Amino acid sequence: MAAASLAPTCTSLSPMPVNLRAPATEQLRPVAGLTLGIAQAGIKKPGKKDLLVMVLAEGSQVAGVFTRNRFCAAPVLLCKEHLDSGGGVRSLVVNTGNANAGTGEAGLRDARKICGELATLLGVKAEQVLPFSTGVIMEALPVERIAAALPACVAALREDHWRDAAEAIMTTDTLAKAASRQIVLGSNTVTVTGIAKGAGMIHPNMATMLGFVATDAAVSASALQAMVRHAANESFNRITVDGDTSTNDSFILIATGSSGAAHVAGVGSAEFAALSDAVTEVSVELAQAIVRDGEGATKFITLRIEGGSNEAECARVGFAIGHSPLVKTAFFASDPNLGRILAAIGNAGIEDLDVSKITLHLDDVLVAEAGGRARSYLEQDGQRVMKQAEITVRVELHRGQASSTIWTCDLSHDYVSINADYRS
Amino acid sequence: MAAASLAPTCTSLSPMPVNLRAPATEQLRPVAGLTLGIAQAGIKKPGKKDLLVMVLAEGSQVAGVFTRNRFCAAPVLLCKEHLDSGGGVRSLVVNTGNANAGTGEAGLRDARKICGELATLLGVKAEQVLPFSTGVIMEALPVERIAAALPACVAALREDHWRDAAEAIMTTDTLAKAASRQIVLGSNTVTVTGIAKGAGMIHPNMATMLGFVATDAAVSASALQAMVRHAANESFNRITVDGDTSTNDSFILIATGSSGAAHVAGVGSAEFAALSDAVTEVSVELAQAIVRDGEGATKFITLRIEGGSNEAECARVGFAIGHSPLVKTAFFASDPNLGRILAAIGNAGIEDLDVSKITLHLDDVLVAEAGGRARSYLEQDGQRVMKQAEITVRVELHRGQASSTIWTCDLSHDYVSINADYRS
Repeated sequence: MAAASLAPTCTSLSPMPVNLRAPATEQLRPVAGLTLGIAQAGIKKPGKKDLLVMVLAEGSQVAGVFTRNRFCAAPVLLCKEHLDSGGGVRSLVVNTGNANAGTGEAGLRDARKICGELATLLGVKAEQVLPFSTGVIMEALPVERIAAALPACVAALREDHWRDAAEAIMTTDTLAKAASRQIVLGSNTVTVTGIAKGAGMIHPNMATMLGFVATDAAVSASALQAMVRHAANESFNRITVDGDTSTNDSFILIATGSSGAAHVAGVGSAEFAALSDAVTEVSVELAQAIVRDGEGATKFITLRIEGGSNEAECARVGFAIGHSPLVKTAFFASDPNLGRILAAIGNAGIEDLDVSKITLHLDDVLVAEAGGRARSYLEQDGQRVMKQAEITVRVELHRGQASSTIWTCDLSHDYVSINADYRS
Repeated sequence: MAAASLAPTCTSLSPMPVNLRAPATEQLRPVAGLTLGIAQAGIKKPGKKDLLVMVLAEGSQVAGVFTRNRFCAAPVLLCKEHLDSGGGVRSLVVNTGNANAGTGEAGLRDARKICGELATLLGVKAEQVLPFSTGVIMEALPVERIAAALPACVAALREDHWRDAAEAIMTTDTLAKAASRQIVLGSNTVTVTGIAKGAGMIHPNMATMLGFVATDAAVSASALQAMVRHAANESFNRITVDGDTSTNDSFILIATGSSGAAHVAGVGSAEFAALSDAVTEVSVELAQAIVRDGEGATKFITLRIEGGSNEAECARVGFAIGHSPLVKTAFFASDPNLGRILAAIGNAGIEDLDVSKITLHLDDVLVAEAGGRARSYLEQDGQRVMKQAEITVRVELHRGQASSTIWTCDLSHDYVSINADYRS
């Protein structure tokens, strides 16, 4: 038990995402009215694609949600400014390897420069370009290298480049993350396809690090804004890897209107519901992929909190569990040291929580009730579940009817290795 | 940069506290009117002292602050009940190896049983005994073994057993933590001596895991309560190892009145201030010792937040930095990836924070200003400071006159090892 008696342990050296494969190119349906071009700008190591340009058909609608981090990155500030300008978005540009965050006024100038250069190449206005960056914080954006690679991106624009695009935005991700759905609206088939990146600094608040979902359906600006908020709340806002909210989190929903399907009517219509469901499904798949590929993750944990007075307190309990380093290391060790989950629940900040009413299940195993270990609980049952790669923790608060689901991963040696070595 | 390219790294196997030695027995001044007895109850591994009894002179005053975790342990509930009974505390009993938390009604019965057994041995009432436990959560307290070892504790009672007592309450601590001061009140010398334990699940809110500070000064109940709150706020409430608040946190201040010195007048008197300062000094030394011996700690980090509108927002910024796994792994790696500190500041939840006004220093090195990297900053200067075992991070918010200091440590492979292996 004493630290000095620890047995020697080496870190595993090939982190593997939990039950996750990168989708094949043919699984990702092109979105009519949207093309993607990828290039190597030399921001990351040589030979890595690190620059992505998306070009949207005229008349496309774009909505987004962004990080609440007060040190938010220059591209986030500029994205909001350009979206607010109402000039219509015609292009998005994403670089990896450098976050352009913590870069002050110079960072804003750099992001504007990139938008301007791309706008000139495409024959649109600079305000019609949205910039995104991800990577190291507090280092100057290599503007010249990015600008020099933009023509290659534009030359490479194609509708079926989603898989390459997913790879081009990766940082510590080990796998490209993309998902696709098709639904029928009226007599037309519409497509929803998205990509995301993120593996650490993951506790999005309004969005993931970077997520882009596009549809060729035609949607009004206000309906699209409602759809993106709903999708973010059901997906990227429900995950945590390490509780750190990034400076660059951005989640963008694009509707090109190029499918030929009729305009989706406002919130409340059947078409809106169907499309919103498809967008949310793609977003949930992408958000879960981020957790499955969480830095050093060896377990995918679903935290299902039920019987709360409201959804917010259920989410607080879920995040209290999902953020606890002690709970996360116990999952890593497959050790049913489940009292740590009770301690985390007790730390959720719910002042009038009656712990004697709470039940805790690990998958189908009742672990705790009446403020303590359940009479029926056997260590071997807890041990069996803890060894699985996917585990559901279910907490019943017995205070009301609300519930919430949070997805997280464990905390392993590889998390420390990856983040200790990130810049070197 | 990609996870797959990580070089092989083994965990270091002998965690060493940062600039900390266990005090020698002769450095710990006995407190008149207080004796301590230690025994082996067989709760921890064989050969480990794991049971401590303290006996106080009649008329001693005792005050305490306790965890805010809603799943607080049975002994915490009973401590509060016994303190509220007003019957006067005559003894404290502390076991390690088992937290008696998450144990429901049975846990309360068990804690009462221990108090009753000890009270019988000492010829006092059960309500005059305060129980404390630390160790694994959600396992039944081994009452019989503890009860069987109580007579050995009582037989061993001595005034100069502080060093042994500090050892007897350790769990994952690698070193005993104790501190002592003497001051002159009027014409009498009075002593303040204390012990504490804790290394993980450390983010006390009102108290540390376990801390006991005693003085032979004579202090009224109300003055003692003010003193213990002040000392906790200046010490144990300013540290974090992993952001997890324990179910068992208790910090107890004892005044036996056996020094012969005159009664310390109320809050505001010179005697109160002098004694309060000594108690706070001992508490700060103990709290810092907990961080220096934090699970897997290789660095001792002082987070000094200045220029806030109020102390609370300064502490929020400090804890946002101190809780960030990404900041903590960067410290472990001695990697001046200091943008992570900016990101953590941005996550402190201060809505109207103007990041362009913030300055960030690492010891004497100006790292960031005007929302980005300082013009004068050189990576080699950051690197030099990051290699030190003790580092001060100073954040100037430029919003007001308030300040706060938080102490924390880094996040290393050993933290994961220790907590993955804790029960095995």
